[in-house]
Amino acid sequence: MKQFISVKDVENPKQLLEDVINLKNNEKFSTIGNNKTIGLIFFNSSLRTRMSTQKAAQNLGMQVMMINVSSDSWKLEFQDGSVMSGDSVEHIKEAAAVMGLYCDILAIRSFPSLVNKQEDYSEEILNKFIKYCKVPVVSLESATLHPLQSLADMVTIKEHQKQSKPKIVLTWAPHVKPIPQVVANSFAQWALACEHDLTITHPEGYELSEEFTNGATIEYDQQKALAEADFVYVKNWSSFTDYGKVLDVKDDWLLNEEKMKETNSAKIMHCLPVRRNLELSDELIDGENSLILAQAENRVFATQTVLKKIIENIM
Amino acid sequence: MKQFISVKDVENPKQLLEDVINLKNNEKFSTIGNNKTIGLIFFNSSLRTRMSTQKAAQNLGMQVMMINVSSDSWKLEFQDGSVMSGDSVEHIKEAAAVMGLYCDILAIRSFPSLVNKQEDYSEEILNKFIKYCKVPVVSLESATLHPLQSLADMVTIKEHQKQSKPKIVLTWAPHVKPIPQVVANSFAQWALACEHDLTITHPEGYELSEEFTNGATIEYDQQKALAEADFVYVKNWSSFTDYGKVLDVKDDWLLNEEKMKETNSAKIMHCLPVRRNLELSDELIDGENSLILAQAENRVFATQTVLKKIIENIM
Amino acid sequence: MKQFISVKDVENPKQLLEDVINLKNNEKFSTIGNNKTIGLIFFNSSLRTRMSTQKAAQNLGMQVMMINVSSDSWKLEFQDGSVMSGDSVEHIKEAAAVMGLYCDILAIRSFPSLVNKQEDYSEEILNKFIKYCKVPVVSLESATLHPLQSLADMVTIKEHQKQSKPKIVLTWAPHVKPIPQVVANSFAQWALACEHDLTITHPEGYELSEEFTNGATIEYDQQKALAEADFVYVKNWSSFTDYGKVLDVKDDWLLNEEKMKETNSAKIMHCLPVRRNLELSDELIDGENSLILAQAENRVFATQTVLKKIIENIM
Repeated sequence: MKQFISVKDVENPKQLLEDVINLKNNEKFSTIGNNKTIGLIFFNSSLRTRMSTQKAAQNLGMQVMMINVSSDSWKLEFQDGSVMSGDSVEHIKEAAAVMGLYCDILAIRSFPSLVNKQEDYSEEILNKFIKYCKVPVVSLESATLHPLQSLADMVTIKEHQKQSKPKIVLTWAPHVKPIPQVVANSFAQWALACEHDLTITHPEGYELSEEFTNGATIEYDQQKALAEADFVYVKNWSSFTDYGKVLDVKDDWLLNEEKMKETNSAKIMHCLPVRRNLELSDELIDGENSLILAQAENRVFATQTVLKKIIENIM
Repeated sequence: MKQFISVKDVENPKQLLEDVINLKNNEKFSTIGNNKTIGLIFFNSSLRTRMSTQKAAQNLGMQVMMINVSSDSWKLEFQDGSVMSGDSVEHIKEAAAVMGLYCDILAIRSFPSLVNKQEDYSEEILNKFIKYCKVPVVSLESATLHPLQSLADMVTIKEHQKQSKPKIVLTWAPHVKPIPQVVANSFAQWALACEHDLTITHPEGYELSEEFTNGATIEYDQQKALAEADFVYVKNWSSFTDYGKVLDVKDDWLLNEEKMKETNSAKIMHCLPVRRNLELSDELIDGENSLILAQAENRVFATQTVLKKIIENIM
Repeated sequence: MKQFISVKDVENPKQLLEDVINLKNNEKFSTIGNNKTIGLIFFNSSLRTRMSTQKAAQNLGMQVMMINVSSDSWKLEFQDGSVMSGDSVEHIKEAAAVMGLYCDILAIRSFPSLVNKQEDYSEEILNKFIKYCKVPVVSLESATLHPLQSLADMVTIKEHQKQSKPKIVLTWAPHVKPIPQVVANSFAQWALACEHDLTITHPEGYELSEEFTNGATIEYDQQKALAEADFVYVKNWSSFTDYGKVLDVKDDWLLNEEKMKETNSAKIMHCLPVRRNLELSDELIDGENSLILAQAENRVFATQTVLKKIIENIM
């Protein structure tokens, strides 16, 4: 594997799921990463991604260097040709190049602005890192996608599916502030690449970019969407069309036990952090059908498999 | 050992002191922690605890993951059943559970609010971590106790005591702002559990919780308390009865050489950080009877012994 | 080597350059640092120094402990004899001593205030660390010098020099805010210690301390200074004489291709971070004569060689 930015970097997504499960069950620790260093570069907060990536790298025997860009380092400039007489202290050209000199792999978390749609959806920051750092890049959540989360999600589904083709529903949930479309985009992209039967349900105005959802069924009626579902993935996102906005929604989109009745005793999924009783009710999060902690646990093995494949490619 | 929250988690405190001294003298480095990960979770600042715990874990061959909750991660919700439509991004239920999935041991520093006595003294945060994380928890200083400090203190006393039953005095000292009762509570609890002769001296209104001091002599006259002392432990704390308040104190409680004359050439102890010439005079901190750096050094070996015993229990 | 604060700690600077190049080419990884711990203490932001020092230590098998003083730890007091009733929580005496107890080597970054010249040029903070910590200290950039940068710079020159005595020019460059004299001081000190032919050019009022530049040619006309240059080191600094001030400069000091014409196809150097098109034009930074990334890469091997020699001295 050369990099891990989206499912498109994976030759055979279904085979990758098996590789993750195999690593999880048979080879939790190895020394393949000895004398290799990964840099974890955070432009934003992180709990699961920070800990699971560090753990995954250490399980492979790698050294880990962690940078919180805003507090540890310098304000970066991303504009080409600018005269740097303002706040920015260092250009991404040098910052990325230098990080690439010190690390064998760079893993980067950089959220969208939710202000400039074109800038976000062109993945400006991530692509400049890729262009200038000259080493394999792993996305720890970018402006549009969260592939390590999605890989862990797909593995979790594979571990719990009883049917060869389960019905998977991605349902929008309420939130109090604008949230990126990242997890929803990425989940849809991976579910479709894994040839799952995917239904997406959300209020009008919350349509995701077709670049990622093409092939999914879109159903605006949440209750209809949930009928006969085997897995229900719950997630808020802000509007893609009215970019970054929180729209007025009249219906009640909080997922609770009552709404789950018409599902096929569906498993509940969420990437965390979850706003309890706003996105998802306590009873569902804490109930026996919740896969939420299983997803979080699989983050380690998903990341470890990806790092292992990248190391194998650069050895 | 199953966890390390207070002296009550220790079957035989006196034996534990010998184990620490034995490890310090004979087995500073080991590989017992290989492929084990400790998460150090900081809700508050730390210098000694941060460095000594990291060093202790690394001396055992463990991997260390460090989280500064406020800057690295998300604002946590601790209330059960709340609708999370405010500032809090993640509930302790998920945060603790996920950290427990990624770590073999969790070590947590969480200071008291000094506002809500009942909340602090019920150890709400620490107990929710213990409840939800499902792995052994080590306190790096909680709302009421600081057991790793106290263990290092007891080891330091054992290394320097000349009598079989030295007179130990814990004396209150002045400060400019409200400080937790944590170190004083914990020192008293451990000294009594180690069957030491303990006198506590402080101005009226600064009585500690009897839960921790039951068995000690309380003497409001500092000079009387110091008579014939072999060890003097100096520490400020805010009022427990008038909770979290700094009370008006007329007498001079700064410990200096003059006051030490009636002691038995007593050794001086403090957990650090110390406010020089406010809590304790320069001459005493820098004098030959100061054990302050010896205490700090023993933090490594105290913690290392505790982690080793917890690892032995989960292997 | 006992410590690494300036070139004066190096018995034979020219031999040290050869040692760095030898390590770089022949022994990137070793185990000499096993069971040794380095503490990296940051009072200021850092990218290259943070990552390259961590990498260097890990390449030697050392454990690394990182402290961002302002966010992780306590506000420090540096004044002797003060009554600590203000903001400062811990005195440098205890902080440094304790860090020294937990680490085999301490590496410290502490920028100048640019307010109090005497305080800065007496290296108060660094010297108090050295005095109280009792272990070897490595400067990660102090109030007056940046020796690890300079060592990497000298190694980079050695790797690229075609003449036995190349002409090296250190040229001042514009900036929008007051910048320490540190890199310029240190570059001059090392270039002269390595017996290089050094010319320094800057506007009037920007004279550096003669303590570091004695032996260099000072030329106020930038174009004259650049004639026949083989290496041009570009760097801004604030005034030393009118301490910490940014002076009015009428001429254009931005280095660009036009000005380079009279050099001997000189190589361009900068320590980074660089303000593009303010200090140095895009065309030069990105051109084929730029050694900027080579300098950054050599930071690892320079530091690794220094740490190795210090470890050899304490074993």
